[in-house]
Amino acid sequence: MSLLVVGSIAFDSLETPHGKVDRTLGGAATYFSVAASFFTPVSLVGVVGEDFTKREEEIFRGRRIDISGLESAPGKTFFWAGRYGADPNERVTLATELNVFADFRPKLLDSHRQARNVFLANIDPNLQRSVLDQIDGRPRLVGLDTMNYWIENTPAELRHILGRTHVLMINDAETRMLSNEHNLLRAARHIFKMGPKTLVIKRGEHGAMMVDSKGVFCVPAFPLEEVHDPTGAGDSFAGGFLGSLASCEQAGEYELRRAMIYGSVMGSFCVEQFGTERLQALNRGEINARYRLFRELMHFD
Amino acid sequence: MSLLVVGSIAFDSLETPHGKVDRTLGGAATYFSVAASFFTPVSLVGVVGEDFTKREEEIFRGRRIDISGLESAPGKTFFWAGRYGADPNERVTLATELNVFADFRPKLLDSHRQARNVFLANIDPNLQRSVLDQIDGRPRLVGLDTMNYWIENTPAELRHILGRTHVLMINDAETRMLSNEHNLLRAARHIFKMGPKTLVIKRGEHGAMMVDSKGVFCVPAFPLEEVHDPTGAGDSFAGGFLGSLASCEQAGEYELRRAMIYGSVMGSFCVEQFGTERLQALNRGEINARYRLFRELMHFD
Repeated sequence: MSLLVVGSIAFDSLETPHGKVDRTLGGAATYFSVAASFFTPVSLVGVVGEDFTKREEEIFRGRRIDISGLESAPGKTFFWAGRYGADPNERVTLATELNVFADFRPKLLDSHRQARNVFLANIDPNLQRSVLDQIDGRPRLVGLDTMNYWIENTPAELRHILGRTHVLMINDAETRMLSNEHNLLRAARHIFKMGPKTLVIKRGEHGAMMVDSKGVFCVPAFPLEEVHDPTGAGDSFAGGFLGSLASCEQAGEYELRRAMIYGSVMGSFCVEQFGTERLQALNRGEINARYRLFRELMHFD
Repeated sequence: MSLLVVGSIAFDSLETPHGKVDRTLGGAATYFSVAASFFTPVSLVGVVGEDFTKREEEIFRGRRIDISGLESAPGKTFFWAGRYGADPNERVTLATELNVFADFRPKLLDSHRQARNVFLANIDPNLQRSVLDQIDGRPRLVGLDTMNYWIENTPAELRHILGRTHVLMINDAETRMLSNEHNLLRAARHIFKMGPKTLVIKRGEHGAMMVDSKGVFCVPAFPLEEVHDPTGAGDSFAGGFLGSLASCEQAGEYELRRAMIYGSVMGSFCVEQFGTERLQALNRGEINARYRLFRELMHFD
C-alpha cells in the first residue's frame, strides 16, 4: 500500500572526518522516501525553492516516488550545513537557513487524501496536524517523528498529534524528555497513554528498540568499519521501517519486527557514503543480503 | 571445569535513587564468583581484612565457591563508597580506601596451580602476570578485565598480559583508549594483534558486543523498569560469561554466543537489587527463564 511522507527537503553541506560535500540534496523527506521506495510506492509532499533543478529531481525519478506533491516556491530551498567529529554524535551546526521552508503549509492533492499510511517527519506539530486533517477518514498507519524543540515549545500541539499517531519514532533523549522519565520502559508506558501504541527508540550506534504491548524488541546497529556521513540515518531507518510495514497486509508483531530490521538495514546503508549516494546506488539484493547479516549478528541457540 | 578468579573483594557503601546500603560485601571477585558459581565450580583468590567476618563468608558458603585462597591480612578490607544518579552512568566516588588491598600479592595454593580457566579481574597488570606465572602450563582460557588507569600508566605491563589473554572484557571507552581507534570494529582488529582472539565490549544499558575472527555478535541489555544498583553488573556479566564457557567442553562460536547471553542474564539480575542481594537469592530456573526472554527480545523471522 502506498505511503505518504510530509517533511523537509534540503540542501546539505556536510563535513565529516571522511570528507565533505557541498549542497547535496537531503532533508528528512528525501532520505525517507528514497529508503521507503525500495518497499512500497511513496508520495512525497514538501517544498523546494528555485535552486531545486532537474538534477535534484533525478534522485526521485525511476523510483516508486510520486513527486506531484512537491511544491516549488519563489526563493531558495532549506539549507543546512554541519560538521561531524570522529564520534558521529559530536555534531556542530554551521548554518541553518529555512528559506522557503519557513512558510511551508502542506497542501495535499486530491490523489493524496486517500493515503492509508502516513509518515509525518519532524516538522511543526501544527503542520503535522494539518496533514492529517486533509486526509479522508483515518489512515491505517500514522508514523511520527519529532524533536526537543517541539517537545519544549509546543507541548499541547504535540499532544494533539500524538493522540492520532500509531508509531512514534524518536531517539532516547527525546523519549526521556517527552515522558519526563529516565527509564525507557516506564517512559514507553507514559507515551502509550498519549496515543501511540508502538514506540520506536532510535539509538544511533547502539541500534534501535521497539516497545509495544507485546513487549520489547532490540536491534543492534549494523557494525560498520567506516561511517562516512551519519546524516539521514534516522530518516532512512524510518523509511525502511514504514515502507516495509506499508507493504504488508497486516502490521502484527511479525511484521513490526521485520520492519525494525529493514529500518536498521536502510540506516546502515545510508551512512556508508555521503548524503543519499549509497541509497541511490542500492539494490534490493543488497538489502536482502544485509537483512540476513542481521540474523547472523543476533542469532543464538 | 573449574574457574579461578583473582581480583578485589571490598566493602561497598552505595547510594542510588532507590535507596542506600552501608558496607555490603562487593568487589569484582565477589560478584564474579557468585555469578559464575551457577555454572561451574569457582576458586576465589583475594585478600580481606580483619573486618571480614563469618557473616561475609556466608555469601560464598553453600555455593560451588572454594575460598581457601582467600587471604586474611591485618588491617581493614578494601572500602569503596559511591553514589549513582538517575542515569546509572553518572557515578560519583565518595571514598576509596585500598587498605589491605594495597599490598595484595596473589599467592596461588598448589591446588589452584592446575587451573584451566582463569579470570583476571581489574587489578595491576603486574599482579595479573604474577598469577599466570604461578599456573602450571598454559590455561585453556584466560579472561581479562582492565581499566583506563592501567591503559594509561602501565602500557608495557598491560601489553605483556594481553599477549597471554584469550578473552578481553572491557567497556567501549576502554576499547577506544587501548586501541587509539574510535570505530569498535577497527579497534577490535588492533586488539587482536595484541593477543586476545575474542573481544567482549561491555556497553552498560546498551548491552554487549563480542568481536572475534568469526564476526560480531550483539546482545542488548535486558530491559528493566528499575535498576536499583548498577554496582557489579560488569563483573556479574564476566562471571556468567566465563562460568558458562568454563562449563563447556569446547569454546566455539556456539558456546561463546551462549556465554554472551548468560553474561547478560547475570548482569541484568545483579542490578535488580543492592549489592549481591539479587544474585544470592537467585536460582537456576530463573536464569533459564531469563535466557529464554533474551530469545524473545532478539528473535525475528
